[in-house]
Amino acid sequence: MKNELAVVLVSGGMDSCVTAAIANRSHRLAFLHVNYGQRTEGRELLSFNEIADFYKAEKRLIVSIEHLKVIGGSALTDINIPVPETGHSQSAIRNPQSAIPVTYVPFRNAHLLSIATSWSEVIGARWIYIGAVEEDSSGYPDCREVFYQAFNKVIETGTRPETRIEIATPLIHMKKAEIVKQGRELGAPLHLTWSCYQDNEKACGKCESCLFRLKGFRDAGVTDPIPYR
Amino acid sequence: MKNELAVVLVSGGMDSCVTAAIANRSHRLAFLHVNYGQRTEGRELLSFNEIADFYKAEKRLIVSIEHLKVIGGSALTDINIPVPETGHSQSAIRNPQSAIPVTYVPFRNAHLLSIATSWSEVIGARWIYIGAVEEDSSGYPDCREVFYQAFNKVIETGTRPETRIEIATPLIHMKKAEIVKQGRELGAPLHLTWSCYQDNEKACGKCESCLFRLKGFRDAGVTDPIPYR
Repeated sequence: MKNELAVVLVSGGMDSCVTAAIANRSHRLAFLHVNYGQRTEGRELLSFNEIADFYKAEKRLIVSIEHLKVIGGSALTDINIPVPETGHSQSAIRNPQSAIPVTYVPFRNAHLLSIATSWSEVIGARWIYIGAVEEDSSGYPDCREVFYQAFNKVIETGTRPETRIEIATPLIHMKKAEIVKQGRELGAPLHLTWSCYQDNEKACGKCESCLFRLKGFRDAGVTDPIPYR
Repeated sequence: MKNELAVVLVSGGMDSCVTAAIANRSHRLAFLHVNYGQRTEGRELLSFNEIADFYKAEKRLIVSIEHLKVIGGSALTDINIPVPETGHSQSAIRNPQSAIPVTYVPFRNAHLLSIATSWSEVIGARWIYIGAVEEDSSGYPDCREVFYQAFNKVIETGTRPETRIEIATPLIHMKKAEIVKQGRELGAPLHLTWSCYQDNEKACGKCESCLFRLKGFRDAGVTDPIPYR
């Protein structure tokens, strides 16, 4: 029986969809989506709602924050910084002072986790699921396991003494191909997901997010069900 | 010479004003204010702007977030939960399941620090100053030193490797009377500050925030310069 409630951060991408599928095995689901001024906000929200319908999420919360766009500093939220078309290596060239890609949104996942924690504390959720991937991804600092371990300590010290909330990152050490396979095994609706950083109609197939996704499907020997340009 | 830039979280209250005065001794100042749907939002913003003018802050950022009010669970953001008039003990009675007052906004300070960190990373600030007070206050979990120590680790792991940002909590172990004295020594504009949880015109003098403030002035042997009902 599923007793404990889990808040699942669902962007609408493949990773968060598979994360929801994993959480769904043992928890009741509360779906959380955050619009933060990213280029593909509308398309992601559509996927979020379709995935939430698919899993019959018992609660859903959609939050819009403007400040990450106002603060800027990322190609995902600032239209003056182009989204690179050949992935990580070129992103690094575009910002020679940093090994982190220009698509990194400064400290974004701390905002998502803070919202998830406040909501969890009020609705009594015991877990926060997030589909962060450490190795086989863009190398964002806030996608690393050490970051989530540190954030668990912040939750422990910053909430009521009787509150018990832990972050679960079931994909953190998976390769993209394993995520595809896991999703298919669990019957996750991958056809409803959206990963492209660039476009809202058909995925571009060229941005770093599309490239990681396509490589995952290729390595898994599976055809990606979504349309590409 | 003041080389390093510090982001100061300024609510408009006495504690954040004195914190700004302390930061001003050694840093260039970037003032950050967050509206989160609290009852006295407009009044606090007025104080923020007046204090920012006083210190000629070189940058200022005002962010409005709606989700803490939507999520609720606090007397500060939900008009259906009354703000207690006799401080901590009565608040505890109103919520028998918790030793934490009903004015606690779940995990609020993590949201404030996340915004401050993203902004600091983009503008190159080295410090985040926040006027949290641990002992001589309402007992909110996210006002304790352990919470800020844990958050420093989250900043270290969740930002670019070349980013160096640390949280400074100069008031954390001060009594309210010491804060008043420190503010007067540094010439902080206490007459511009606002602490009341309840009202926008004249401070109520009865909510827990007013009571802590008034006791601080009384213990310091100083008259509070702001008007009370």
